[in-house]
Amino acid sequence: MDKLDKINSITLSRGFFYPSAEIYKASSGFWTYGHLGTRIKHKWENIWRKSFLGLSPRYFEIDDCVIMPKKVFESSGHLEHFNDPLTECRKCHQRYRADQLVENATNKNAEDMTIEELDKAIEKNKIKCPKCKDDLSKIKIFNMMFPINVGATETNVMYLRPESAQSPYLAYKREFEAMRRKLPFGLATIGKVFRNEISPRQGFFRLREIVQAELQIFFDPKEITKCDNWDKIKSEKIRILKVGEKKIKDYTCAELLKQKIPKFYLYHMVRVQKFYVEDLQIPKQKFRFRELSEKERAFYNKIHFDMELDVDTLGGWKEFGGLHYRGDYDLTCHQKGSKQKMESVRIDGSRFIPHILELSFGVDRNVWALVDIFFKEGERDYIAFPLGIAPFDVAVFPLVNKKGLPEKAMEIFDSLRKEFNAFYDESGSVGRRYRRQDEVGTNFGVTIDFDTLEKGVVTIRDRDSMKQIRVDEGELVEVLRNLLGGLKFSKAGELVK
Amino acid sequence: MDKLDKINSITLSRGFFYPSAEIYKASSGFWTYGHLGTRIKHKWENIWRKSFLGLSPRYFEIDDCVIMPKKVFESSGHLEHFNDPLTECRKCHQRYRADQLVENATNKNAEDMTIEELDKAIEKNKIKCPKCKDDLSKIKIFNMMFPINVGATETNVMYLRPESAQSPYLAYKREFEAMRRKLPFGLATIGKVFRNEISPRQGFFRLREIVQAELQIFFDPKEITKCDNWDKIKSEKIRILKVGEKKIKDYTCAELLKQKIPKFYLYHMVRVQKFYVEDLQIPKQKFRFRELSEKERAFYNKIHFDMELDVDTLGGWKEFGGLHYRGDYDLTCHQKGSKQKMESVRIDGSRFIPHILELSFGVDRNVWALVDIFFKEGERDYIAFPLGIAPFDVAVFPLVNKKGLPEKAMEIFDSLRKEFNAFYDESGSVGRRYRRQDEVGTNFGVTIDFDTLEKGVVTIRDRDSMKQIRVDEGELVEVLRNLLGGLKFSKAGELVK
Repeated sequence: MDKLDKINSITLSRGFFYPSAEIYKASSGFWTYGHLGTRIKHKWENIWRKSFLGLSPRYFEIDDCVIMPKKVFESSGHLEHFNDPLTECRKCHQRYRADQLVENATNKNAEDMTIEELDKAIEKNKIKCPKCKDDLSKIKIFNMMFPINVGATETNVMYLRPESAQSPYLAYKREFEAMRRKLPFGLATIGKVFRNEISPRQGFFRLREIVQAELQIFFDPKEITKCDNWDKIKSEKIRILKVGEKKIKDYTCAELLKQKIPKFYLYHMVRVQKFYVEDLQIPKQKFRFRELSEKERAFYNKIHFDMELDVDTLGGWKEFGGLHYRGDYDLTCHQKGSKQKMESVRIDGSRFIPHILELSFGVDRNVWALVDIFFKEGERDYIAFPLGIAPFDVAVFPLVNKKGLPEKAMEIFDSLRKEFNAFYDESGSVGRRYRRQDEVGTNFGVTIDFDTLEKGVVTIRDRDSMKQIRVDEGELVEVLRNLLGGLKFSKAGELVK
Repeated sequence: MDKLDKINSITLSRGFFYPSAEIYKASSGFWTYGHLGTRIKHKWENIWRKSFLGLSPRYFEIDDCVIMPKKVFESSGHLEHFNDPLTECRKCHQRYRADQLVENATNKNAEDMTIEELDKAIEKNKIKCPKCKDDLSKIKIFNMMFPINVGATETNVMYLRPESAQSPYLAYKREFEAMRRKLPFGLATIGKVFRNEISPRQGFFRLREIVQAELQIFFDPKEITKCDNWDKIKSEKIRILKVGEKKIKDYTCAELLKQKIPKFYLYHMVRVQKFYVEDLQIPKQKFRFRELSEKERAFYNKIHFDMELDVDTLGGWKEFGGLHYRGDYDLTCHQKGSKQKMESVRIDGSRFIPHILELSFGVDRNVWALVDIFFKEGERDYIAFPLGIAPFDVAVFPLVNKKGLPEKAMEIFDSLRKEFNAFYDESGSVGRRYRRQDEVGTNFGVTIDFDTLEKGVVTIRDRDSMKQIRVDEGELVEVLRNLLGGLKFSKAGELVK
């Protein structure tokens, strides 16, 4: 089995992720988070909230509807531009994304080619219908939003939002008033978005129903050159693959400033890198920013670096988020479309439309990346989730399922689950139970045996080293607190940093 | 202003709730949670998780897609039965829900009338089009689900789920395996559902896009008569309005058992009442169960009591959730529809389809109820949210916006927000700032004045009593921890229970 098969076998059978409505052979692009996957997703989301809402007391979360009026997407440009290039087999009428066919045929990125370029590429490379080998039609554009008829007549067409960013833009006026008309402030949202992908590929990576975590920061464009903590961050190194370069390099913020990346943007690059490398504990060499070329980035994005992770099961470096300096594009669009004033006034009386810095993350693919990156292959296959990210901190086992051990174990389990994410398991051999917990990444195991009943001692087992130590039952909570706080056991059995 | 106007004025302007896509005059039935509303929603959801997922180590949360295959709703019965009765004006073609027109004309509940009964009632009561007074058409049935075309052809029709319950039923097989084929276990889900209401009424109460929190417990039907903690709960009193009764009465579990309500169901009635009365701290007289008559409840619900709250701004007692003993209806439907075995086997070899107990809550209306029930009218209008439910635990103010006070206040704010939900405000008179925080329900205010700089003392103000006490800056965190833990100040300024 290769790594993907091994991971799929664990994630499907143990309750991480499985296809939605699987018993009805569901359409591709729709997945369910099972009971373990939901926990990791919640942990990712809460770490994200702590990392980014924690940046300022004026950053808050909002929660909006996913069905939105047509006018929103007329203004935002999605009705006109949120399209995929579609080609159809002239014989079997199967439909394909033209850029994907061209990519498969040429092994080159075709996502940014125009319709004309794609038509030419299909002709030149003699690309045929993959199914019946017949000719393909000229490319048509296909809008990726899902329309919905709301109400009892068919006249009120609304759309499922294709990105969560529109929600803070629509809420901007209300929240600007609630924030007492002061900038900067930030509106985050974690929620569903929907894209009618013609042919979703790659399991958990390109979905039709997606969770996004985004923070939109509204600010006076004059502030883009400022950063309160500049002295603290100017020597910080950021890992970047620049346009035209073949190697990832470390650049200090001071160097990047000279290359015309403004301080406010750099500050957020530092925070995003910290989020991945420190908060999620992803190995540094698996993270990079990638600078997008002018052709790759949307015309309104003045500065655009993607966050990329190196994920084996997705074929290497892939996009997991983006840091977009969107300028005044969004609020200007909605000011025009809604005829509502979005302007702000400086103390000196000058007027401006607030600019937006967007931190955007695809939650599902980020959760998948955690599983891939921490998956260990070897004598035992297991997921070495860092502390605070595993579905369970600790599992409790009675050594055998009799003679008062389950009752004692349940008593200890009940005391642990008040403070930790704890799991209880009493069936099968204790060795098998350890392996089952290793597989899903539980950090520690606690075994209750006859010595617990007689002498009041329990065994703690560390997932990674498989080392076991015995501690007094009365000290168990405190020891686990220390272990989950990052202390480790020395060879002598002492807790050390 | 009446109570609803007062609440609307606060919730709209301060960032609790406002119409979604309001700048485009959004369709009714779609609302946004603003930055304060989102916090209360998250608090409600987390208290719900703690209360109900905490009931068993085998209750877990899953997170599913909202777009589902047509076959799911063929099996569940929603395609055939999830309908509203629709009537249309013969002249202006405006469409209405027939039962609502009949209710308005007769002042009687018409939700359970058949199409024929409604047609007769329209004729008998001479009900006309409310807009142009012309005749109404015969009633047609109107399916309330939103269909969606998925993929590039129009042949793959899927639906937005109208209830979240289907997700655990669809996930049942996978999770049953992951739970090592043991019952009981529970699958909860908190997420969006969608209903194409013909004419949504009552602001936040009848929405088209709804958040549901549901727990589905799968169990061996033989266990319905069992309850591990029966001795602890048999004397507990439950507030119920019974079918045919006009008064709410308290019944002990022992009495209800005699009336053939089984122990497993009673245990969950007790927990649900505790959730409202203890965990959410809603006054007992504002909560009741209402027993549904055979005509009111779905045919598959063997036992069905609704949770009701007395909410002034919604016109009194309304439904906020339901406790449904659904029997084997759901898994039997999906076994038939999907041809997948849902059966379970007892140790003695006998086979059965697991039964389901459903705890179902409408999150949006529950959040609205918190605002209504804790809203205080008087000299100052404010929301007296209990501890742990307000958007902010504590607000920090410098007395004046100069002479080093804002810097000191910000330093204290930064130390508080590590542990508490804290808010910082420096603009306007301190009296106005207190009132603004009272209005949104912040429990405590902390003011930093010149004595803070000179003597190291700060002032804590209690929202409800408006009492102020001075404490040493070094003790502030500990004192707030005690206050938020439920201690109060005595007249002598000591912390007491």
